[in-house]
Amino acid sequence: MPLTALKRLVSGVLPLPNTWQEICRDLLRLKDDATVLRLAVELLERYEGFDDAERLAFFEHLLREFRVDHDALAAAIAAYQAEPGPMQVQTLNLASQPNRRRLFELLNMVPGGMAMLLDMRATLIRLQRQHPELGAVSSDLAELFRNWFNRGILDLKRIDWNTPAFLLEKLIRYEAVHEIGGWPDLKQRLSAGKRCYAFFHPVMPDEPLIFVQVALAGGLASNIRDIIGADALPADEAGADTAIFYSISNCQTGLVGIALGDLLIKQVANLITAEAPHITRFATLSPIPGFGRWLSSEPNPAPERIDDASLRSLRNVLALPDWWQSSQAKDMRATLEGLCAYYLTSQGSNEQPLDPVARFHLRNGARLERINWLGDTSEKGLLQSHGMLVNYVYDLDHVSAYHERFVYHHEVTTSTAIQQSLKRF
Amino acid sequence: MPLTALKRLVSGVLPLPNTWQEICRDLLRLKDDATVLRLAVELLERYEGFDDAERLAFFEHLLREFRVDHDALAAAIAAYQAEPGPMQVQTLNLASQPNRRRLFELLNMVPGGMAMLLDMRATLIRLQRQHPELGAVSSDLAELFRNWFNRGILDLKRIDWNTPAFLLEKLIRYEAVHEIGGWPDLKQRLSAGKRCYAFFHPVMPDEPLIFVQVALAGGLASNIRDIIGADALPADEAGADTAIFYSISNCQTGLVGIALGDLLIKQVANLITAEAPHITRFATLSPIPGFGRWLSSEPNPAPERIDDASLRSLRNVLALPDWWQSSQAKDMRATLEGLCAYYLTSQGSNEQPLDPVARFHLRNGARLERINWLGDTSEKGLLQSHGMLVNYVYDLDHVSAYHERFVYHHEVTTSTAIQQSLKRF
Amino acid sequence: MPLTALKRLVSGVLPLPNTWQEICRDLLRLKDDATVLRLAVELLERYEGFDDAERLAFFEHLLREFRVDHDALAAAIAAYQAEPGPMQVQTLNLASQPNRRRLFELLNMVPGGMAMLLDMRATLIRLQRQHPELGAVSSDLAELFRNWFNRGILDLKRIDWNTPAFLLEKLIRYEAVHEIGGWPDLKQRLSAGKRCYAFFHPVMPDEPLIFVQVALAGGLASNIRDIIGADALPADEAGADTAIFYSISNCQTGLVGIALGDLLIKQVANLITAEAPHITRFATLSPIPGFGRWLSSEPNPAPERIDDASLRSLRNVLALPDWWQSSQAKDMRATLEGLCAYYLTSQGSNEQPLDPVARFHLRNGARLERINWLGDTSEKGLLQSHGMLVNYVYDLDHVSAYHERFVYHHEVTTSTAIQQSLKRF
Amino acid sequence: MPLTALKRLVSGVLPLPNTWQEICRDLLRLKDDATVLRLAVELLERYEGFDDAERLAFFEHLLREFRVDHDALAAAIAAYQAEPGPMQVQTLNLASQPNRRRLFELLNMVPGGMAMLLDMRATLIRLQRQHPELGAVSSDLAELFRNWFNRGILDLKRIDWNTPAFLLEKLIRYEAVHEIGGWPDLKQRLSAGKRCYAFFHPVMPDEPLIFVQVALAGGLASNIRDIIGADALPADEAGADTAIFYSISNCQTGLVGIALGDLLIKQVANLITAEAPHITRFATLSPIPGFGRWLSSEPNPAPERIDDASLRSLRNVLALPDWWQSSQAKDMRATLEGLCAYYLTSQGSNEQPLDPVARFHLRNGARLERINWLGDTSEKGLLQSHGMLVNYVYDLDHVSAYHERFVYHHEVTTSTAIQQSLKRF
Repeated sequence: MPLTALKRLVSGVLPLPNTWQEICRDLLRLKDDATVLRLAVELLERYEGFDDAERLAFFEHLLREFRVDHDALAAAIAAYQAEPGPMQVQTLNLASQPNRRRLFELLNMVPGGMAMLLDMRATLIRLQRQHPELGAVSSDLAELFRNWFNRGILDLKRIDWNTPAFLLEKLIRYEAVHEIGGWPDLKQRLSAGKRCYAFFHPVMPDEPLIFVQVALAGGLASNIRDIIGADALPADEAGADTAIFYSISNCQTGLVGIALGDLLIKQVANLITAEAPHITRFATLSPIPGFGRWLSSEPNPAPERIDDASLRSLRNVLALPDWWQSSQAKDMRATLEGLCAYYLTSQGSNEQPLDPVARFHLRNGARLERINWLGDTSEKGLLQSHGMLVNYVYDLDHVSAYHERFVYHHEVTTSTAIQQSLKRF
Repeated sequence: MPLTALKRLVSGVLPLPNTWQEICRDLLRLKDDATVLRLAVELLERYEGFDDAERLAFFEHLLREFRVDHDALAAAIAAYQAEPGPMQVQTLNLASQPNRRRLFELLNMVPGGMAMLLDMRATLIRLQRQHPELGAVSSDLAELFRNWFNRGILDLKRIDWNTPAFLLEKLIRYEAVHEIGGWPDLKQRLSAGKRCYAFFHPVMPDEPLIFVQVALAGGLASNIRDIIGADALPADEAGADTAIFYSISNCQTGLVGIALGDLLIKQVANLITAEAPHITRFATLSPIPGFGRWLSSEPNPAPERIDDASLRSLRNVLALPDWWQSSQAKDMRATLEGLCAYYLTSQGSNEQPLDPVARFHLRNGARLERINWLGDTSEKGLLQSHGMLVNYVYDLDHVSAYHERFVYHHEVTTSTAIQQSLKRF
Repeated sequence: MPLTALKRLVSGVLPLPNTWQEICRDLLRLKDDATVLRLAVELLERYEGFDDAERLAFFEHLLREFRVDHDALAAAIAAYQAEPGPMQVQTLNLASQPNRRRLFELLNMVPGGMAMLLDMRATLIRLQRQHPELGAVSSDLAELFRNWFNRGILDLKRIDWNTPAFLLEKLIRYEAVHEIGGWPDLKQRLSAGKRCYAFFHPVMPDEPLIFVQVALAGGLASNIRDIIGADALPADEAGADTAIFYSISNCQTGLVGIALGDLLIKQVANLITAEAPHITRFATLSPIPGFGRWLSSEPNPAPERIDDASLRSLRNVLALPDWWQSSQAKDMRATLEGLCAYYLTSQGSNEQPLDPVARFHLRNGARLERINWLGDTSEKGLLQSHGMLVNYVYDLDHVSAYHERFVYHHEVTTSTAIQQSLKRF
Repeated sequence: MPLTALKRLVSGVLPLPNTWQEICRDLLRLKDDATVLRLAVELLERYEGFDDAERLAFFEHLLREFRVDHDALAAAIAAYQAEPGPMQVQTLNLASQPNRRRLFELLNMVPGGMAMLLDMRATLIRLQRQHPELGAVSSDLAELFRNWFNRGILDLKRIDWNTPAFLLEKLIRYEAVHEIGGWPDLKQRLSAGKRCYAFFHPVMPDEPLIFVQVALAGGLASNIRDIIGADALPADEAGADTAIFYSISNCQTGLVGIALGDLLIKQVANLITAEAPHITRFATLSPIPGFGRWLSSEPNPAPERIDDASLRSLRNVLALPDWWQSSQAKDMRATLEGLCAYYLTSQGSNEQPLDPVARFHLRNGARLERINWLGDTSEKGLLQSHGMLVNYVYDLDHVSAYHERFVYHHEVTTSTAIQQSLKRF
């Protein structure tokens, strides 16, 4: 229902407050649901018309005026300290909830409200760079989203060539890993031997939250050109034994920090198992987005067994145009792969892998399986990952154990091949 | 998806913990989404097999073991007191959230989990009578439900003779005001001149949460037999000007305390306005469920202008079988109506109307309009309300003002006729 | 789309003809599709208001005025006789098609037109008794229906407790074999261990054409009370090996003569095989509607080996109230069963079985399997079939051969037991 | 349901005939519906594998072996001549129906059969060029299609950006008037201010039969570039008063001769009226596909008032590259427009307009309104129509009268402007 139609549905003769500040105030003060809904609609409409300065003012207002009631909170603390029972805890919990959170909940009553709240958080994340204090408001929204985008309520839907065009168009826009070069490219990715799945929220059925693209293949894929684009291998569904997750893209900036990818991968894996029992292996073909930058700066932590001169000469080759087609490329392959393995298994000061994609998959319980030399020689692939792609394997029988090992012991599980490669450094 | 199917989808080879206590512990300890989901499914399956004693043990376990971490909470309090900034408030808020709430959230990830959590709360409400300490667990669930059953996510759907039979069968079961005497009775309530609407949650599309039954009429209806049953008046949709909300029933015990009725009435009113602009008045035809008991006990607060003798003789008549068909009935009508008006507008020590139905409608901003003598002479109607029904009018242009007057000033808005009736006492 | 809405859609300013005779004429004369549609709508609206006398006049008009053009037909015959080529045949075929058939086709353009044409044929079938000449008009409709209700266009849909109530209500009305005694009875017939399927036409999705009711059972069912009603056996889907077709009902009088039952039974059998491979046998539990009448009149053809005295004494017992509970019942069982087998396998002068239900199943290729003594002791069952029911077995591997044997050689396939029983006569 | 799945559903143990000729024979001989269906599936499967020579043999077989029974037909003729009553007519009609028609009806029982029959007719139309005798078989199919694709059964559906991609892709393929240059072009044609509607048959919901593209505009559009392509005018739905039907395309070769376009245009006009009452005029922007060829050959009928020299010089200019941008273009505009009007209103020996598009719209009751100089300067537009487009106006209040005038009196209705233009010749 568009906002205007809804407004008519809840309209009355009472005049609305003049300022958005008054609307915010009345939203919390009044308890008549229909009036509250009407105010919420009005506030969202006004917000839609705000420019960036007004949005900033709006969020600052929420930060300062719609915080907790400090007196009430102090009283709740005192009561809790006097008797730390469950009811006192509950009172304390309620008292420590900023009023803006309730305000956001009321805005979510409006059809279309959830999409606007996602948009608000995306704006907050942008404004936060200049106004770090807004992090508290952003966190409040994140806390609500964590609840609202609970897996229990999400729909996992297959996307294919039967999907409405407007939705497919969004895939083209949201694809973050390997750009979709138009409708023919998209069609190829939705044709035989391919799968695409996305999570949706029931109140926003037109908006994918996150989607994953899968190719069924015989064995581990090593090159993205075998999967997508004009030169892709012909599909052989019946002969395939491996599902390659070659792209996973978040669609909603407002959901940053709300983890949906782990479950998406594993549930899609299980769906594929059910539909095609001959698929017995699940793996990714992933970029190494931080490798290029890491290697060009002073690697930290630095690999011990490579000297500065070797490193410099390596960099010189990599700086050549089309180096990967040059004669030197072959010579440096082992070194570059070793460095890549080193990078992927190294951890920063926070005891986390340096590479964001590695962080994601390893945390999910995947095993670092294989580095694929020149697996992606697109401009982006060369720039980010020096042309390399990596396979992470999701061994459904072991993901849980690997995950625990990673989370509680900071151990990265790798294949024997990777371990060999690592011995160089 | 049935639990067993899901279980297969998330299954792995890792052995599951032996006891439900261990499952509860691991649910919070492990972070691999697929494992967590698998544990949640397992826990729900075990719970399904629990008898009452085991359920009690389960909830007591949640109460005692899945509470807040008091040390962490003390630290959060200290940090807040040292610097009461928004981030400190947030930490305090998180620290004061009992662990069982997170556990419930994880159970909600399971398809079908929400229905089972509703069922858990219904059980808690029952067990609470003997075990009041469980109120804290019940409150935690209520807090989550308030969020999950946000109006923004609910679907308002019309129910009619095109609705699947299994759903209609539930209406028969859930109807709480005027019992539905079988399928022919149900069909009459869904035929021309009638409307029925319900709220649904998208993850439980087969379960109505609350539903309202409406009859379109010429003028305010005064007798329930004009609306339902074998002697009901023939429908005249085109000639109608009033929508009579003659029954509103909550379907889910687990949602006690989560207010959905106010918005249901008002949104249905607006839907009817949009569909049938000739309907210009919205009113209820409601029981007065507490009147009978109030009058038979010592009325408190007591009406001043009626003496004990009159009251006693009134009660004597009311004790006669079929008193309402007797000759004395007519004589005592004015007195009984006056007492009823007095009862409906009286407030208890909590400054709330004594009658639960009055409390609901007046709080919503309705006006107490008319008392209908012998409007419901069914056995239940005579027992509860001495045969009387009352109309509350929802004047959409004024509900907000009336609501405020009621909530903030404890004033009940009444019609001139009711005011006249009240003058007797 | 209701007729009135459609009328608006195709309306223009041109005045419509005054009489329905003129509308009929213009329908064939004009070629502008929109005008034709408008006239068709108008004609159907007028027809809807006709009483029986007007309907008769309408059909007589179609018979006499909308026949073939005899001159054109004579010319086509001459041309064909001069040169009997395919184009001459085609011209002859078109010339021998009465104009009323084209008129009916035009009426079918109107949404809702098909339902009204069905209704017209039902009326024709009724009027035909007094006005046999209308058989030609009825045949024209039947010819069109044979084409329109082609299996290729029909939808085979399962009906269960999820089906909209209005549709279920129609089952109650249309059930022709074992009356459905209300909603609880209906629910029992749609619950576990039962199946119900119907054919629908896509332009009349709210109208079942024919439906069949099936019970899954262990072995051949012998008594209808084991299947339906308050004393039915509990369902054991997993343990069942036989699907019992216990009721098949045509819903549309207008479709008399358009055979849909054969395919319905066989396709449902195949659906059940696909869904429940443990079901390996398909059989009916059928009434013998003509047996009672046959036995009480002079049986023709007469069984040879029973003398008049025996027959007379048999009839005397059958005339007793509750004879089936009497002591004599047991004595006459073998005789009565033998007579029943004799009746079921006897053929009339048209070389067809005497019993209509036998005719249907045997023609479909079923085998006459077993006579069930006192399988239906309802009032109707006693009256029609002297309490007996019969199983016809659909052996999918042999139906085609049995069918051919029956159609081309007038041979009835029976079980050994039936053959034994027949030896008596 | 794919053919193979269906085959399983109707399979039995009986061996199938060896040759397709035997299958054809048995299809008509056997009467057991399930067997018939199985044979039909088998025949379609074999046909699918036929090459052109086999298809030709198949159709010739149908022509020669599945014709009428000439003896039976002679008998029916004799009976009719003896007594020309309705029943004799009916027998004659049935006897004059070639057996292949029944065979086609049986093939239509198979899911997917209708699509294959359409394909058969498309093949027949192609083969007919070399084998004109197949026209009789093609006519039989056409006769059946006329019945099956009755307007009463077709669905009129809007197509927009919410439509599944696979269906939109078909629009790109089927568009016959102004080629769709890819997905962005398609999207522009489905965006604000545009409409697209198609007829579908319920058993082939994935296959559009015919579709029309409409642009809402202020006034009569004169140039196709204002409507489609990169330079199209921005949409102004609210300000529009005219619906321009700028493209209408048949999708199914097999439906040649089955007129669907007339009703499509008029029903879409009425749908638009209902949805957007401010649209009060309906017109086309149409090509004149035969004009170029007509002018370059010896025009017949020849315009009287233009001499050969003028005509020759005109042709010389038109032969210049980019003549329309030359200085001479302006000088010859009036002459060329006049000739175009002359061409559009001229009739051939069959008393039909020479131009196929004119024939279609004028027969529908449209008025020839305006010739648009350089309305389509695409390559195709210059070649076919010397760059001109024409508006036909559908005046819903007069289409019926214009249609009658055209059909019964061969009169073309034109605007005053066209009449002026015609005076030149």
